[in-house]
Amino acid sequence: MIKGFKFVSTPYIEFGAGTLRNLWNIIPKFGNRLLLVIGKNSLIKSGKLGEIIKNLEKKQLNYSYISISKEPTPEIIDNIVVEFKKSSLNLIVGIGGGSVIDGGKAISAMLTKEDSIRNYLEGVGTKLHDGRKIPYIAIPTTSGTGSETTKNAVISETGPNGFKKSLRHDNFIPNIAIIDPELMLSCPSSVTAACGMDAFTQLLESYVSSISSPITDALAFNGMTYMKDNILLACTNGASDINVRTYMAYGSLISGITLANAGLGIIHGLASSIGGFFEIPHGVVCGTLLYEATKMNIEKLKHNKSEGIKYLKKYAKVGSLFLDSTLEISNDKLETNLNSLLDKLKNWTNKLNINRLRNYSIKEKDLNRIIEKTSMKNNPIELGTENIRKILLSRL
Amino acid sequence: MIKGFKFVSTPYIEFGAGTLRNLWNIIPKFGNRLLLVIGKNSLIKSGKLGEIIKNLEKKQLNYSYISISKEPTPEIIDNIVVEFKKSSLNLIVGIGGGSVIDGGKAISAMLTKEDSIRNYLEGVGTKLHDGRKIPYIAIPTTSGTGSETTKNAVISETGPNGFKKSLRHDNFIPNIAIIDPELMLSCPSSVTAACGMDAFTQLLESYVSSISSPITDALAFNGMTYMKDNILLACTNGASDINVRTYMAYGSLISGITLANAGLGIIHGLASSIGGFFEIPHGVVCGTLLYEATKMNIEKLKHNKSEGIKYLKKYAKVGSLFLDSTLEISNDKLETNLNSLLDKLKNWTNKLNINRLRNYSIKEKDLNRIIEKTSMKNNPIELGTENIRKILLSRL
Repeated sequence: MIKGFKFVSTPYIEFGAGTLRNLWNIIPKFGNRLLLVIGKNSLIKSGKLGEIIKNLEKKQLNYSYISISKEPTPEIIDNIVVEFKKSSLNLIVGIGGGSVIDGGKAISAMLTKEDSIRNYLEGVGTKLHDGRKIPYIAIPTTSGTGSETTKNAVISETGPNGFKKSLRHDNFIPNIAIIDPELMLSCPSSVTAACGMDAFTQLLESYVSSISSPITDALAFNGMTYMKDNILLACTNGASDINVRTYMAYGSLISGITLANAGLGIIHGLASSIGGFFEIPHGVVCGTLLYEATKMNIEKLKHNKSEGIKYLKKYAKVGSLFLDSTLEISNDKLETNLNSLLDKLKNWTNKLNINRLRNYSIKEKDLNRIIEKTSMKNNPIELGTENIRKILLSRL
Repeated sequence: MIKGFKFVSTPYIEFGAGTLRNLWNIIPKFGNRLLLVIGKNSLIKSGKLGEIIKNLEKKQLNYSYISISKEPTPEIIDNIVVEFKKSSLNLIVGIGGGSVIDGGKAISAMLTKEDSIRNYLEGVGTKLHDGRKIPYIAIPTTSGTGSETTKNAVISETGPNGFKKSLRHDNFIPNIAIIDPELMLSCPSSVTAACGMDAFTQLLESYVSSISSPITDALAFNGMTYMKDNILLACTNGASDINVRTYMAYGSLISGITLANAGLGIIHGLASSIGGFFEIPHGVVCGTLLYEATKMNIEKLKHNKSEGIKYLKKYAKVGSLFLDSTLEISNDKLETNLNSLLDKLKNWTNKLNINRLRNYSIKEKDLNRIIEKTSMKNNPIELGTENIRKILLSRL
């Protein structure tokens, strides 16, 4: 039986090495006043910003650009919106990592409003956004959040009352996503590692999500198939191999589509609460928890006689990707395949030197308030406070 | 290596038994003046039209409805557009088979223009449509064309100068697609058979298309997985089984997404030229040619030493769906799997009593002009005039 499902629109997507150059022909369709949102330095270092500006000027387009150098806060977004409110912009183009893509998305949505983004954030404000926005083109330079295809922008504020929450509306899916793996060639290996672990986590969590559908299952599994051999390579001697970067970019793109439609699990639940209290890169939280949380999910699912086997078979099918074996999981192969998955996730965590939580000043005494603020999202099974604590302790 | 690809937006999709009822809450978001485009009788017979009208009146929506009872011609569309030009419609809702869904799509696009649709049809007119349209919601009542997710509306005119051509623009993808398998329960078996064969053809042709991408491959294969055991059932003792209808509807939905992004092959090339000259249901042309054209493609691919094996492996992987075997195709299994696919397609053609071309007055003397007007589309291999003739002769 297929349960009913919703599938939100995808952006119009241009994917492949060199596709950035399509931007010059796309922009004029939206108008001639655009705001470019970029990151702190990767575009400048790689020389791409110069190329972009040269082309905007050749087309006689009226552009401004601003930089978002960290995960966007309400203040960052509000200040930019005030600055550009009267510019009658026709288009926002975000080129950068997840913070930039989310920042651009939030700016495009808030330029139609008169008050703070804070009022519209889930679980923070009380207002519902009506979805009106300035058209938005997203161009990722990392293979990480998949934000180029999602309907939400994550906004954080760290501190004792911190949060990491979404501005969300179906209309906030970017109008166009351009995924050009050439832009990722200069991404440093620590960022590539954290982003890659985030993208794989998104694929895995949406694949075993309690609200997944046949369409998200097909896509998530496909995304993992392309990423599985490239995560380590992209961080080591494959970093300048355009094919490796292309496979990573593809996995990340797909992870955005699947998370937008199937949701995520406990790892992203924890990333949200931890990211509210501490300044820790989103990809690092996901990467550091991926193995331990998956192990816990599998353990708990083994004790669930009714629904457990359905999800265990899905985890096992992912495990089969790392074995030279059939994708059909018989009962006697289940354990082998599950171990194959766990071994691989552990291996990635070690090989990629994913930081522990303590590297970001997170201590045992912080765990209670983290757990209290953590949602299970669409995790395949309820874990309970003590098991969540065990996951965190093992990566402290 | 992943070749560069484009992926056009999908509509916002609501899928599942009973989802029609979401329509009442969706319509008011677009405004309160709508035109309902329906077919000739299935909605009336099933009592669904009464239910729809009752609900529109309860919401105090200002609606009109018109019926499209055959594959839409330029005149049908032009006349409806003239009739409703001054109605300041906010929304078009098409509920019916492929002709109705395409008709509604064309009306929504032509209400923004002052001249005939003929001027904008590919290969017929000379004007490019700019993509402006009235918002459009597509609600299929058959599992066939997948038009609820595509960017084109097929318009035909039969006769000596006949054509079957598309009005096409990325913006013509419906804003919303509601796929409610309950609406398909009353679809007669001959229509279910032809539509089912069309949908499977679309999945298979886009899967082996020369411009397929990893994303369309994953989806097309997934769609075939769900359809494979249900085509015969949906036309026989599973016709009133909502699960069977749901699987068929899912396959059809996916086929629209994959054809919009990977294109189609020789079968749809022939369906286009034959449909221009003769009054023959689109699904019947596809269904009647599916086995013979696939057999010819496979034969020709076996003689292509460079690219052939890539596509043969894909055909074989589809064949493996009908065997109790692994999805990984080794060379010694290739032939077994290819035969498995061909046997199944032949079996469907016979069991479903798909009409031969001669039932629609097509004769051997007509083949030359048909072939002359036939495009290979994105077929995996060039077939040549004589091989196309052989396909047609075998189904005359």
